[in-house]
Amino acid sequence: MPCYRITIEYDGRELVGWQRQKNGPSVQQHIEEAIFEFCGEEIRIQGAGRTDAGVHAFGQVASFELASNRKPQVVMNALNQHLKPAPIAILACEEVDADFSARFSATKRHYLYRIINRRAPLTVDAGLAWIVKRELDADAMNEAARILIGRHDFTSFRAAACQANSPVRTLEKLMVSRDGEEIQVRASAISFLHNQVRSMVGSLALVGTGQWTKGDLKAALDAKDRQRAGPNAPPYGLYLTQVDYD
Amino acid sequence: MPCYRITIEYDGRELVGWQRQKNGPSVQQHIEEAIFEFCGEEIRIQGAGRTDAGVHAFGQVASFELASNRKPQVVMNALNQHLKPAPIAILACEEVDADFSARFSATKRHYLYRIINRRAPLTVDAGLAWIVKRELDADAMNEAARILIGRHDFTSFRAAACQANSPVRTLEKLMVSRDGEEIQVRASAISFLHNQVRSMVGSLALVGTGQWTKGDLKAALDAKDRQRAGPNAPPYGLYLTQVDYD
Repeated sequence: MPCYRITIEYDGRELVGWQRQKNGPSVQQHIEEAIFEFCGEEIRIQGAGRTDAGVHAFGQVASFELASNRKPQVVMNALNQHLKPAPIAILACEEVDADFSARFSATKRHYLYRIINRRAPLTVDAGLAWIVKRELDADAMNEAARILIGRHDFTSFRAAACQANSPVRTLEKLMVSRDGEEIQVRASAISFLHNQVRSMVGSLALVGTGQWTKGDLKAALDAKDRQRAGPNAPPYGLYLTQVDYD
Repeated sequence: MPCYRITIEYDGRELVGWQRQKNGPSVQQHIEEAIFEFCGEEIRIQGAGRTDAGVHAFGQVASFELASNRKPQVVMNALNQHLKPAPIAILACEEVDADFSARFSATKRHYLYRIINRRAPLTVDAGLAWIVKRELDADAMNEAARILIGRHDFTSFRAAACQANSPVRTLEKLMVSRDGEEIQVRASAISFLHNQVRSMVGSLALVGTGQWTKGDLKAALDAKDRQRAGPNAPPYGLYLTQVDYD
């Protein structure tokens, strides 16, 4: 049976997240239905990252097997046709080895978090970035971010609902930069805990406004207590930008 | 009477354009109603650029007089409050001399046109960029763009409805660049004819796909005949990014 890997872009504003849910349309459900409409096969696809409701993606990856052989280009075009008008697009499709798993073969996941730092409300970017009206010091945020880089117990930055066995993760990159009124936080790791990026961004924002020092962030990490982190940044500023494979 | 200048951002997707229309809400109407709700004054504001339905702005400018004296910061915050939930935001407000006119004092207008060049449909950028599925050669487009720079009779690139007295304009900048799948066209001039940017972008796209040579673009300009230009690029890729004043 041929195995396919697809790269997916979506606008999370109207979606309940990656995973199938009872309360509304998920990315997974839309794509599985498009596959069924295309070739009549009722299958389950596997995603690299289970993004929450409201979270966007420029480079989510999923894998699945089909019973019948189809050219990757045909699969991609057919899925895009059947996905309309859902805000989901298949950017690429290729055939992969049968042992490939979008989730377990991933060697790195990359996220972007967009903050617009200004007093005026958002228009074009409404639902596509977090607006923070208090002035943020991006340099201070970037300096504090270094505390979180490396191998740590991230219990403080983990959702209560997180299902991972271990709270230990190795954060390879956490970088904060400003371009005009936009502040971007870029995070990379082999894998993340549930809500980890949003939780880290929420705490970094406290450093940015001056409510927290670098020391407060360090203390929150060391406490291994999810009550000690700042409030989660909202989902709609978050983008799964890329997933790497060997 | 104090005179104010405001800088405006808007998402043109749900708007009928800058000017008041009978067929739906315009940017001008929304702002004039917000001013009325704020201070009870029924006034007309003047905009720097009369953008069409669907066109966006990051830096539209308008000017108006009020009978009563208000602090610029108060005007800005009040208008943003009353503009909700329209996708229009006042980014800045300052008091200016009584002879200031957003339209006639402008020394340069800057537009950006966004093209996404890929086969997959748009998600996050739906309505915020023009999707072109055929491969575009951005370098060829940029080279051809040089033909249009300078002082010319732009009759070929002007809407039938254009109300300007003269079709002669001096195009100061027309630059095409590619970053991944996004192609950006940047245009600057003291003023533009109606639909001029969209018409120029539509013709440059013909060069980008190879349907037109540079010579065809030159011939279209020289013909001074609006039947000779390519089809207008759609409005939703266009952004009024900035207006300069002395």
